[in-house]
Amino acid sequence: MNLAALSTPAALVDVARMNRNIARMQQRLDALGVRFRPHVKTTKCEQIVRAQIAAGAQGITVSTLKEAEQFFDKGISDIVYAVGMVAGKLPQAFLLRRRGCDLKIIVDSVQSAESIVAFGREHREAFEVWIELDVDGHRSGIDPEDERLIAVGRTLVDGGMKLGGVLAHAGSSYEYNTREALVRIAEQERASAVRGAERLRAAGLPCPVVSIGSTPTALSAEHLEGVTEVRAGVYVMFDLVMHNVGVCDTSDIALSVLTTVIGHQEEKGWAIVDAGWMAMSRDRGTLRQQHDCGYGLVCTEAGDVLGDYIMSSANQEHGIVARIGAADKSIAERFPIGTRLRILPNHACATGAQHPEYHALSEDGALETWPRFYGW
Amino acid sequence: MNLAALSTPAALVDVARMNRNIARMQQRLDALGVRFRPHVKTTKCEQIVRAQIAAGAQGITVSTLKEAEQFFDKGISDIVYAVGMVAGKLPQAFLLRRRGCDLKIIVDSVQSAESIVAFGREHREAFEVWIELDVDGHRSGIDPEDERLIAVGRTLVDGGMKLGGVLAHAGSSYEYNTREALVRIAEQERASAVRGAERLRAAGLPCPVVSIGSTPTALSAEHLEGVTEVRAGVYVMFDLVMHNVGVCDTSDIALSVLTTVIGHQEEKGWAIVDAGWMAMSRDRGTLRQQHDCGYGLVCTEAGDVLGDYIMSSANQEHGIVARIGAADKSIAERFPIGTRLRILPNHACATGAQHPEYHALSEDGALETWPRFYGW
Repeated sequence: MNLAALSTPAALVDVARMNRNIARMQQRLDALGVRFRPHVKTTKCEQIVRAQIAAGAQGITVSTLKEAEQFFDKGISDIVYAVGMVAGKLPQAFLLRRRGCDLKIIVDSVQSAESIVAFGREHREAFEVWIELDVDGHRSGIDPEDERLIAVGRTLVDGGMKLGGVLAHAGSSYEYNTREALVRIAEQERASAVRGAERLRAAGLPCPVVSIGSTPTALSAEHLEGVTEVRAGVYVMFDLVMHNVGVCDTSDIALSVLTTVIGHQEEKGWAIVDAGWMAMSRDRGTLRQQHDCGYGLVCTEAGDVLGDYIMSSANQEHGIVARIGAADKSIAERFPIGTRLRILPNHACATGAQHPEYHALSEDGALETWPRFYGW
Repeated sequence: MNLAALSTPAALVDVARMNRNIARMQQRLDALGVRFRPHVKTTKCEQIVRAQIAAGAQGITVSTLKEAEQFFDKGISDIVYAVGMVAGKLPQAFLLRRRGCDLKIIVDSVQSAESIVAFGREHREAFEVWIELDVDGHRSGIDPEDERLIAVGRTLVDGGMKLGGVLAHAGSSYEYNTREALVRIAEQERASAVRGAERLRAAGLPCPVVSIGSTPTALSAEHLEGVTEVRAGVYVMFDLVMHNVGVCDTSDIALSVLTTVIGHQEEKGWAIVDAGWMAMSRDRGTLRQQHDCGYGLVCTEAGDVLGDYIMSSANQEHGIVARIGAADKSIAERFPIGTRLRILPNHACATGAQHPEYHALSEDGALETWPRFYGW
């Protein structure tokens, strides 16, 4: 199988770029003296996660218990489920642990901690629980200064659970685009997480792990004192949102969607392609960034960025490719029917999720099929 | 299996509402004297398509050749692939026809028509081809007044292909929200398609089928003189975009995502739920409509709309539920941890595509699993 034989639309992975991205992050975190636990929600793909582990990653982060089950079945045991646990999901987590999976769960309320304790006692299972911290007002978690932090820790320990550490994610890092701002939010993520850990320890509670991370902060932190591990997901592929944030170049983006030109509206300067939002996802993450790329940035079939052509609009299985600014009325000559293009995505996690498999393209032109899974 | 035992997030189909939507569209098109060919891209689900056919639908419309293959394997033969054919996909279409599938393909350029003729002659296959018309400047297709319409028709007929008819889709109908505007765009779709057919016939070319449709125009047309069939997809579920367009009530929306409250940020008035954009899709179709519903409108677990609560923001596996306007600082009491909610989606086609299966809930509380497929 080679690129020319691949039918469109298809999700392409540039393996050389992917390996470069994996090496870059691992080397950086090795140098900063912390463990790296990649977030596998970006790819949900065994081949890619194996490459991350081969490069030095220790354990994985998951966003669903299905990811935990799938990767445990493939031999990975050290797993953090980084979405707040609720009572209804405890039986599924318990089953994984009973099967031997070293599954860690997270919590950010006394009520959920109590549910875990009640279930754990009933089933004689000492769940390992990490406390989720809110370090930037982005989403979930307990403020490190909030009294509830100690209350949750005490509930878990008194109830016989294993308090494994704290976990934070500075999701707001995606909103910045200068080196200074990224360094600042990275330090805020680090310092707030360490502060939460210190408060727990000062209260006589254990807190061995301090886990933080997002792709922008992991690539911007100047030091990680007090941190034991970092998590990041999208760095493995990168995307246009990360490019706008300023942590990668377009030539680092390892994921693209291969598509074919199927028609034109010449007077409008449109080429119609057979990748729509089903292939790109509906993600418009670049909408409010400094470079709005529509549904993606257009490259040649070989992967060279064409500069000012984007997928300006998308229906389910149709994309409209157009030049930014003045309409290109010669677009039918530029991209004749049958022309194949690659489209770089706004958001690699969202675009990947639309595809049952990646087509992994090596530098020598070999193409492999790497399945991914979906659902819950 | 019942609703209470279903883990979250999950795509729920209210079967009574779905059947009502199916009956409404079929009765309307029966009364207008045209055949109905539902677009199965919305659901990609055998059980639902069978219900549409049982109600009177004749044939189906697909957006990918995979849909054609999947439904042909389930015994449905009369299929229109409503995305412009290119040379690279002809072998796949040919194989389907050789297996006995009555597959119709569409084209909107002389160049693609010539590719079909060349392939058809080489393989002794008289493809049935419909010509795609542009009736509203929305996307693909040939203007009915454009000379290329006749040129494409003549290329096909002279080349030995079967010219089956014309096909149009007034996709711009989604942009309107008054009865008058919808009646006007529906009449424009009808009249333009009929005009294209008449021009072909006046040139001595056959044009037995005049196929038009979109959910808003199908539900707004006052008559369909000259039209032989209508296509529509999203009507089977409806969604918030269609509600804003004005062709359904929220109580008609048959698809929702079941989710669980996993935490709060009380001072912000946020409830955090375990459905994020992975479960809802990234579709923000209501963003520029008169009622922006964020990522979806919040209902009780039983399906009753809660009025002014929406999913205001979404990450991959987290949604933020908040009140429109002033923060609800009692949200933790209103929706305690463990509360289950249903979220009505912006766009049923996009939300459905995120799920490997629908959970079909009957009025008697019985729950069935209806698989759907994805990919290309």
